[in-house]
Amino acid sequence: MDGDAQRAVRLADGRELIYFDDGPGHDRSARDRRDLPPFAPSSQLRLDPLLDEWVIVAAHRQHRTNLPAADACPLCPSAGGRRTEIPAPGYHVVTFENRYPSLGGPPAGGRCEVVCFTDEHGSSFSALPDRRLATVARAWTHRTRELSRLPGVRYVFVFENRGDEIGATLQHPHGQIYAYPFVPSRVARAAEVARRYREERGGCLPCAVVAAERAGGRVVAETGRFVAFVPEAARWPFEVHIHPLRHAASLPDLAEDEQAELMALYRDVLRRFEGLFERPAPYMAHLDQAPVGGDAGLAHLSMRVFTPRRAADKLKYLAASESGAGAFINDVLPEDAARMLRVAGSSGPGAV
Amino acid sequence: MDGDAQRAVRLADGRELIYFDDGPGHDRSARDRRDLPPFAPSSQLRLDPLLDEWVIVAAHRQHRTNLPAADACPLCPSAGGRRTEIPAPGYHVVTFENRYPSLGGPPAGGRCEVVCFTDEHGSSFSALPDRRLATVARAWTHRTRELSRLPGVRYVFVFENRGDEIGATLQHPHGQIYAYPFVPSRVARAAEVARRYREERGGCLPCAVVAAERAGGRVVAETGRFVAFVPEAARWPFEVHIHPLRHAASLPDLAEDEQAELMALYRDVLRRFEGLFERPAPYMAHLDQAPVGGDAGLAHLSMRVFTPRRAADKLKYLAASESGAGAFINDVLPEDAARMLRVAGSSGPGAV
Repeated sequence: MDGDAQRAVRLADGRELIYFDDGPGHDRSARDRRDLPPFAPSSQLRLDPLLDEWVIVAAHRQHRTNLPAADACPLCPSAGGRRTEIPAPGYHVVTFENRYPSLGGPPAGGRCEVVCFTDEHGSSFSALPDRRLATVARAWTHRTRELSRLPGVRYVFVFENRGDEIGATLQHPHGQIYAYPFVPSRVARAAEVARRYREERGGCLPCAVVAAERAGGRVVAETGRFVAFVPEAARWPFEVHIHPLRHAASLPDLAEDEQAELMALYRDVLRRFEGLFERPAPYMAHLDQAPVGGDAGLAHLSMRVFTPRRAADKLKYLAASESGAGAFINDVLPEDAARMLRVAGSSGPGAV
Repeated sequence: MDGDAQRAVRLADGRELIYFDDGPGHDRSARDRRDLPPFAPSSQLRLDPLLDEWVIVAAHRQHRTNLPAADACPLCPSAGGRRTEIPAPGYHVVTFENRYPSLGGPPAGGRCEVVCFTDEHGSSFSALPDRRLATVARAWTHRTRELSRLPGVRYVFVFENRGDEIGATLQHPHGQIYAYPFVPSRVARAAEVARRYREERGGCLPCAVVAAERAGGRVVAETGRFVAFVPEAARWPFEVHIHPLRHAASLPDLAEDEQAELMALYRDVLRRFEGLFERPAPYMAHLDQAPVGGDAGLAHLSMRVFTPRRAADKLKYLAASESGAGAFINDVLPEDAARMLRVAGSSGPGAV
């Protein structure tokens, strides 16, 4: 499967790009004929000593592409004389190094990649067919594995943001992958809490939480091996966590059919988000996995999907309590959010 | 001073309101003649077990006042037949319990207050005269002291947000005070890091950081007893921290003339923010102080002021790295930000 259906090329400035196809037999040999300046990212890591947290300074990003018109989309395939980031005239899934990365190059290290889910500019993840979901899962898994092997990389973070209300600068259906040269604070914190739990009470904290949430009345949808629920202490108006029912630390730990189930449940949750209001809700989706070389017993694979939209015409902002004190305030009762999400979407409650 | 120049009253629904005047001799006896429904806040605290963090669920806030027209401003004084939150026909500084609080009432406890800095709707903190700054400092100090004495209150958080770009729902110059029934995670984290530093190296970590920052080339302004700098690991495009040069844990620990100096420096920083771009920058300002009953040696009074505006027409959003992984990415080099802030504002570099 990884033979004909996958091909790595170099862009004009030396960045790596990989085509992941739904099947073999597609010609992805087109060359990048653009005249690009050399790729020389130069982000810095700086430690905030008061919180013992790394901050990334990426001053070169200040002039990155910001909401270009559809006919100038850098994520569309190269066609009709227009040259984009993707040299081929068509593609299924493609990953490549971000031209304006937050991470990469000396001295900080790390790497930022873009993942395009389809060459159809006006589509969305929620509209992808099953076959494409499998290809996305294959790309995410491949990149998780490969980026974890880069020198200095400590955490691979797969995510998707959609909607200009939340600052997504490109509308073409895509996600990103950040390979951090440090363990980000949220991940470190979760591992610390899980370690304390294991020492004091034994077992896996996320597994215990999933068991409690399944009985908590806030389940949105459940498949044979995965569950999607609004957590009891949701931070965002509509926030859904997707967990495997068995313990798994990372995407590569899942079998192919498990990955298919996870992807279909993620798509199902996104469709429910679309059904919440009169117009599609902007959303953020984050994939949690184990840090590189970390204790797999402490990490627990999960996806967190949320929208900051709290009503058809209202967004939740991060206010002083969140950004200044670290205390989230949620204006929507998680039980109400779960109820609304169960009935939202054409697929009906509980179905995938 | 606290006699004639201060008067506590009750609003129609029982909430407490206190007038803090620039001097004695003002009549603040007007009664609140509105017919208000009973004040019955009902927020909940929920623990996120995976991060060991409290989340506040305040579903009753969903329908709070959102950017009312200027002639319906609830923070203007009551005059000309219009009845607002403030019964008097004029005021200097006033604090009162928030009608749509995130905290308060059973079972969560805690309290949210509003602080109005002037009765002039179109004014701003940056335009306040020295005499008013002293009154604001007196109000902040009084409320810090009194709220700290409420049963169950663990942390008093004084802050100001300005600008609808960051979700401030009212334009009238005002700030807020949150009295939390728990120590918020950012505050707890800072205390934990400071404790480790003291155990391993001795002394006060924030004091050591202030000393290093004064020599770091990012000082924006300095007075005899306070310094304002862009921290080496700034998270936001334009972020300034204001610290006393001596160790002080809380606002009530400062002498009156020290408070005056702090307030003037805060105003100076706000004026510099206004000078950065063609139009006033939205900003958030947070006052850090010691938790109630906390170790005063571990806490360090400071103000953090920042704008999410990274260019005249661009805002920094919290993207996946920040909200999903806890790793901030700053697109503006802190040294550049400090340089721009030193020259911004009519008062000139270094002056207050």
